[in-house]
Amino acid sequence: MPGISVGFIGLGLMGRPMSRRLLAAGHPLAVANRSRPSVDALAAEGAAACASPAEVAERAEVIFTMLPDAPQVEEVVFGPEGLAGAMKPGSVLIDCTSNDPRSAERVAGAMAERGAHFLDAPVSGAPEGAEGGTLAIMAGGPKEVFERCRPLLEILGGKVVHVGESAGAGCIAKLANQILVGVTFLGVSEALVFGAKAGLDPAALAEVMSAGLARCGALEVKAPKILSGDFQPGGKVSSHIKDLRYALAKAEEMEMPLPGASLVAELFDSLRAAGEGELDHIAIVRAIERMAGVEARAKG
Amino acid sequence: MPGISVGFIGLGLMGRPMSRRLLAAGHPLAVANRSRPSVDALAAEGAAACASPAEVAERAEVIFTMLPDAPQVEEVVFGPEGLAGAMKPGSVLIDCTSNDPRSAERVAGAMAERGAHFLDAPVSGAPEGAEGGTLAIMAGGPKEVFERCRPLLEILGGKVVHVGESAGAGCIAKLANQILVGVTFLGVSEALVFGAKAGLDPAALAEVMSAGLARCGALEVKAPKILSGDFQPGGKVSSHIKDLRYALAKAEEMEMPLPGASLVAELFDSLRAAGEGELDHIAIVRAIERMAGVEARAKG
Repeated sequence: MPGISVGFIGLGLMGRPMSRRLLAAGHPLAVANRSRPSVDALAAEGAAACASPAEVAERAEVIFTMLPDAPQVEEVVFGPEGLAGAMKPGSVLIDCTSNDPRSAERVAGAMAERGAHFLDAPVSGAPEGAEGGTLAIMAGGPKEVFERCRPLLEILGGKVVHVGESAGAGCIAKLANQILVGVTFLGVSEALVFGAKAGLDPAALAEVMSAGLARCGALEVKAPKILSGDFQPGGKVSSHIKDLRYALAKAEEMEMPLPGASLVAELFDSLRAAGEGELDHIAIVRAIERMAGVEARAKG
Repeated sequence: MPGISVGFIGLGLMGRPMSRRLLAAGHPLAVANRSRPSVDALAAEGAAACASPAEVAERAEVIFTMLPDAPQVEEVVFGPEGLAGAMKPGSVLIDCTSNDPRSAERVAGAMAERGAHFLDAPVSGAPEGAEGGTLAIMAGGPKEVFERCRPLLEILGGKVVHVGESAGAGCIAKLANQILVGVTFLGVSEALVFGAKAGLDPAALAEVMSAGLARCGALEVKAPKILSGDFQPGGKVSSHIKDLRYALAKAEEMEMPLPGASLVAELFDSLRAAGEGELDHIAIVRAIERMAGVEARAKG
C-alpha cells in the first residue's frame, strides 16, 4: 500500500519509534497523543498533528493505536471525539495494545457499525524491536484485511503472523506469549536460586544451562540482570500482572485451569505487595530468593 | 592427556556413542556393561572387554560411568567386584549419570578412601549430542582434577563447565537444568493449549512466540511434537520425575520451596498414573489438554 495515509494514536515508548518507521517509509502520517510534546516532536519530523482521535480518523486510511491498556483503548474509541463516531467506511483500525480480548471484541463491533475494519495486533520485542522494526506481531481479524495491511505491518515487525480470524485472536496470542514468558521466568528463577542455595556459582550454572534443552530467551536476556542484581525495567511486573489477569479471566471464561500461570501471577502479586511492582518482571526471582533465604548473584 | 587409558562402564544409548568417541580419539579403552552384547560390539572396535567394574579399574587411569540412576551407580561402586575395592590411587572416576547428589557424596567418600579422585559430571544433550560430541557437561569436584580431565571431557562435550568444588555440584547443576526444562515445558503447554482452546492455530502461535522473549528450547524442539501428537521419547516422563524428586529432596534438605518444580512433578505424576510414564516428557501437555478438554494439534 505505497503512499497510503496512516494514523498513529499513542506515542509512548513503543508508539514513538513505530510511528517514526511508518513516516520514514514514506507514508503520510497523522498523529495524536494524550500529552502534547510527543505530538509536536513527530510533527517536527513531518507528521500532521491532530487534536483528537476523530481528527486522525478524518485524515487516515489505516490507523494504529498503541496504548497502555484497555481503558485507554476504550477512551480513544468510545470517548469524546473518539474513533467510534469518526472512522471512514473501508478504513482499518489496527490496535497494537496488549489488550484484553474482550475489549478487542467491543472495539471490533464499533468498527463494524461504521463499515470499517479491525485487526488486533499486539507486539513483542520491547522498544529496541520497535526501533529496529524487528517486532513479533501477532494479528487477529479477517485474513483478507490482514493481507492488505501486511506491507504496513512488515515495516514494524520482523515476524508478522496471522493467528486467527476472530477479533481478539491477536490479544489471545499475546496473552499466551506472556504466559510462556512468565512461566520461563519462574523456571529460570527456581533453577538459579536452587543452584545458589546449594553452593554453585549461578553464573556457571546459567552458562551451562544455556547450552542445552533448558535454553530460553529468559535465561539469555534476563540471567545477566539476575546475576548483577539489576531490576531496572524493561517490562514491568505491573504490566505482566495485567496480562496474566486477562489470561486468567479468559481461561476462567473458557473453563480451563492455568496452574503455572496462576502461580506466576501469585508471585507477581507478592512483588507488588512488597512495593516492587515497577521493577523489571524478572524481579520474580526476588520472590523465590526471599523464600529460599539466598540471592542468585554472581560470585566474586 | 594423550594416550591415557580410559574405562567406560554403562554402554546404553548415551554410553555407547560417548565411549566410541574416546576410542576414536586414540585412548586405550576398557569397557564393562551389565548386558554383554554392547561390550562385544565395543570390543570389535578395539576396546578391551572386561567382566566387572573391578577389572576396568585395573586397566584404566580415568573411568567414566554412565548409568540410569543412583542404584546402578552404587551397585557398580559398592557391589561385588565394584570400583570401591579396586580403584588405583591417583586414578579418577567421572560419573556422568544424572544422579542423586547424595549418592555422589557417598561415591566421592569411597574414592577418597582409595586415594582416588571423583568428579560428578552429568550431561545434557540426548544421544545426538553424545554422538556429535556436543553435550553440555556440568562437572563438580576439585577444580584441579577437573582441569586435568578437561581434555577428555572436551572429546565428549561442546560446553564443559566446572560448576563447583564439592562432590555432587554437577548433579545439582543437572537437577537445576531439569527444573528449568520441566517448567518451560509447562509454560509451552499452557500457552499452546490456552491458544487452541480460544480457537487459535497452535502452529501459528508457536511460530510467533518463537520470535520473541518467549523463545525457548522447549518450544523449538518440542512444539513440533505437540502439534503432530508425537510423544515417542526422547527423554521420558519417568526419568524427569526421578530428576525432580531428587531436586525436591535436596530443596527440602535446604529448606527452600520450589513451587514451579513441585507443580511440574505433580503433573508428571498424573501422567504416570494415566499409564503415560514412558512417553516423551513433553507429554506434560496432555495433562493440560485433559484439564482443558482440548488438544493443541496443528490445524488442517
